[in-house]
Amino acid sequence: MKPKPSEHWRFRLHEVIYESNTRAGKAFDVGLLIAIFTSIMVVMLDSVVSIHLKYGALFYKLEWIFTGLFTIEYILRLVSIKQPIRYVFSLLGIIDLISLLPSYLSIFFIGAQSLLAFRALRLLRVFRIFKLGEFLSEINFLTQALKNSFRKISIFLLTVLTITVILGSIMYLVEQKENGFSNIPESIYWAIVTITTVGYGDISPITPMGKFVASVVMLIGYAIIAVPTGIITHDIAVAAKSKKEMPESCPSCSLEGHDADALFCKHCGSSLFR
Amino acid sequence: MKPKPSEHWRFRLHEVIYESNTRAGKAFDVGLLIAIFTSIMVVMLDSVVSIHLKYGALFYKLEWIFTGLFTIEYILRLVSIKQPIRYVFSLLGIIDLISLLPSYLSIFFIGAQSLLAFRALRLLRVFRIFKLGEFLSEINFLTQALKNSFRKISIFLLTVLTITVILGSIMYLVEQKENGFSNIPESIYWAIVTITTVGYGDISPITPMGKFVASVVMLIGYAIIAVPTGIITHDIAVAAKSKKEMPESCPSCSLEGHDADALFCKHCGSSLFR
Amino acid sequence: MKPKPSEHWRFRLHEVIYESNTRAGKAFDVGLLIAIFTSIMVVMLDSVVSIHLKYGALFYKLEWIFTGLFTIEYILRLVSIKQPIRYVFSLLGIIDLISLLPSYLSIFFIGAQSLLAFRALRLLRVFRIFKLGEFLSEINFLTQALKNSFRKISIFLLTVLTITVILGSIMYLVEQKENGFSNIPESIYWAIVTITTVGYGDISPITPMGKFVASVVMLIGYAIIAVPTGIITHDIAVAAKSKKEMPESCPSCSLEGHDADALFCKHCGSSLFR
Amino acid sequence: MKPKPSEHWRFRLHEVIYESNTRAGKAFDVGLLIAIFTSIMVVMLDSVVSIHLKYGALFYKLEWIFTGLFTIEYILRLVSIKQPIRYVFSLLGIIDLISLLPSYLSIFFIGAQSLLAFRALRLLRVFRIFKLGEFLSEINFLTQALKNSFRKISIFLLTVLTITVILGSIMYLVEQKENGFSNIPESIYWAIVTITTVGYGDISPITPMGKFVASVVMLIGYAIIAVPTGIITHDIAVAAKSKKEMPESCPSCSLEGHDADALFCKHCGSSLFR
Repeated sequence: MKPKPSEHWRFRLHEVIYESNTRAGKAFDVGLLIAIFTSIMVVMLDSVVSIHLKYGALFYKLEWIFTGLFTIEYILRLVSIKQPIRYVFSLLGIIDLISLLPSYLSIFFIGAQSLLAFRALRLLRVFRIFKLGEFLSEINFLTQALKNSFRKISIFLLTVLTITVILGSIMYLVEQKENGFSNIPESIYWAIVTITTVGYGDISPITPMGKFVASVVMLIGYAIIAVPTGIITHDIAVAAKSKKEMPESCPSCSLEGHDADALFCKHCGSSLFR
Repeated sequence: MKPKPSEHWRFRLHEVIYESNTRAGKAFDVGLLIAIFTSIMVVMLDSVVSIHLKYGALFYKLEWIFTGLFTIEYILRLVSIKQPIRYVFSLLGIIDLISLLPSYLSIFFIGAQSLLAFRALRLLRVFRIFKLGEFLSEINFLTQALKNSFRKISIFLLTVLTITVILGSIMYLVEQKENGFSNIPESIYWAIVTITTVGYGDISPITPMGKFVASVVMLIGYAIIAVPTGIITHDIAVAAKSKKEMPESCPSCSLEGHDADALFCKHCGSSLFR
Repeated sequence: MKPKPSEHWRFRLHEVIYESNTRAGKAFDVGLLIAIFTSIMVVMLDSVVSIHLKYGALFYKLEWIFTGLFTIEYILRLVSIKQPIRYVFSLLGIIDLISLLPSYLSIFFIGAQSLLAFRALRLLRVFRIFKLGEFLSEINFLTQALKNSFRKISIFLLTVLTITVILGSIMYLVEQKENGFSNIPESIYWAIVTITTVGYGDISPITPMGKFVASVVMLIGYAIIAVPTGIITHDIAVAAKSKKEMPESCPSCSLEGHDADALFCKHCGSSLFR
Repeated sequence: MKPKPSEHWRFRLHEVIYESNTRAGKAFDVGLLIAIFTSIMVVMLDSVVSIHLKYGALFYKLEWIFTGLFTIEYILRLVSIKQPIRYVFSLLGIIDLISLLPSYLSIFFIGAQSLLAFRALRLLRVFRIFKLGEFLSEINFLTQALKNSFRKISIFLLTVLTITVILGSIMYLVEQKENGFSNIPESIYWAIVTITTVGYGDISPITPMGKFVASVVMLIGYAIIAVPTGIITHDIAVAAKSKKEMPESCPSCSLEGHDADALFCKHCGSSLFR
């Protein structure tokens, strides 16, 4: 679709900022990622007291430079599309705004700058890298497998949560309040720490009965960890099979880009499989 | 099977309380789940000392309201079936009773109210949710796979338990009693914590020899975690295959709902596979 | 093979003690397992100081009763086979002896009784249970899969050990000696605790550089845990396939009990697969 | 390719040191591995203070003997190939040099000897063992599967790292600085410890909100551990299949040693599969 001449600049800008097929678009993406990485590195290092004492002033300047750059980027993103409101309320749009606000808020509120840590959320843009390169097919493959697994994994996580609430409540009764299991939410936190085999040891059973219940929880966790693995392994195999069987293009009209579960060509209607 | 007119009210009540095909049945299930969730939330929050001090009186009233509601539900469940004794001694029946008793016991015995934590067991009813929605086929699929795995997982867990008893006893000899391995049950508890890779660190080996034995235990645990995973993954693949091959209805008489291992139609006897 | 009349009693005894096809043999196995369980339970409870103080005298008597029973069993095992020396030096024979010695040694050496913990090794006989029941085919199946995986799992464990030695040595240089990484074997122990995701926390990195190296170790451990799982899952699938394809009996001469990798009947030489 | 007579000694030396087809070559490999093992054992034991105090003098002599032997080996490796510079800058060449330097540096700099721990890197030569024996096909098989998985595992690890940076930054805001989450890099370290289910417990959340975020991190870690497992399991199955299908030699010209993904004989061009 050719844009109107009067909109040409917007079309070009959109191509550079939102797409990555052109050389300029790729350069913008790579440059943005470097800026994001560097700005997060600055926030991270500035949070270390000893480094802050030495380079605090430098970091302060750098943060304002990055805030400036990201503000310009935010404005460019707004003007280069026809419906800026859709970007503003998209996930990435909200994240972009959240990573800008702390700097400006810090002018009025002392301490707001510490919220700069939220800038790490911008790392989510790193997944654009995969679109640039040869990882595309692997990414599609994994995404497909995870999409297939989603429902089963949800059921699994809900079951695990139910088990932890029940076991946490029982443990609250079994162990005395003095042993760290001071209330039910705390006990549920302990059950999650245990069933996922993390095991910090900040709360651990003291009484023999408590140790017995804990052993049961651990063995349950050890046995059911296999369930999501089995699910995802199976769905990867299924995704791999459908990927293999699916022809890249329609054998009748040569159209490409069919959905993973398509049986007939969406253009000419002839069967994709012979 | 049509009920006798005199039993019609019981039939209707049974449909609402025990089934979920009708609109009233679904509404009852959803309402009950919300009541269970809220009542557990109240018990959980009441166990936190700081919240109890503030809202203890409110929680006390709420607990009696929920106890009242659940008592009515329990009585309705009893009268709506012909053989109430079967419900009373079923798993869910016992759980329902256990979640009622603490409130009534607290009238006579001080402290009995803390047993309200057992009300969390009622969360098991959450699995009815899956029956309501589109998760049904996934749930059936997972249940089938786990049923197939059950025997193999049992053998695996028994083997792990035997290993932990043996290794725990050896560790009791290797480490001095002062190092936390004060008796054999304690040492077995340590072996379970270690082999499941939970690793609280409340008991950990001190002597070089103990650390060597612990390293062996950890490597064993690291290697055998793969066994249940392999088992379940395989049984999920098998369940998926049988689900795929199994036709939804008999090709001769169109009867649906055959068992997963059925080879012939249970109605007309013709082969399900052509 | 029919035994000579003079050897009949030995043949009968052997059947009862070593086999489990006869009713008497099964009863002996079950009785022995109960005795082993009880005796281990006694040793375990006796190791708990508070219980020992109360029931120590009773336990002392029970231990001597079990020692007597097991001594009789040991002698019967010796006389019921033609080459007793083969039993004496078999794994189970050595374990049986080790579980007897501590009681007798305690007459001469004070403290030898604590070695009774080794009696837990006799639990290995529990695996005979599986031979009694319907678990036989599952056990064979799992054993076959694990046998196939053995070499690959060995390579994997050797690789993990090499990695832990290298990473442990590096960590010894990175962290100061004061931080618990006091020598290289200790650091290797830490690397094993970390790479297997056990994570006691008895030794954990303090310096930023140490935390960085530890993070690398953890991510390696997180990624390579998948390797044995993949191996065993694959070999279970292979074992399942060969089990399925393999006919239970030769289609020509009906001989049963062929090896898992047999292609031709070992009796008549005709192909097992058609 | 036959070497020039004048180069015959270099050819023989190369055969012994770099290859393992000849008897002398195998003997050299085995001897070298024993020397490496012993020298690492000496370094390890010498790092234990109590052993160092007793045998320090002996270890000092042994270290110089091994340094001498490895120096001779290094020189032989240099002279036995035509382009020694390629060995010097290869991975194994650099490791060999690093394991020599500490001894010589210790003459000039006190303390340099502690760097001998780097000698553990020479253990990487242990993988040559596999080339000697019957493990070759298993090693090739695993290597092939891991090679296939490499890209997908990289994407997975990059995703995990991104998640830990984001979650670590959020946790830095949620928990007060006093609770061990004293700066963002520290919080990211905690997120890695948690998501990999290691769970040292050196840093663990104190506030209720922090415990909630931690629970989410743990459940994420518990669910996504399945992803690399699924990937590797699938690629092992694929590698196994291609290994099975691939004929050992070309059915036309009998040439052996085709690549795993070859479809046609590289010598005569006829199809490898019939």
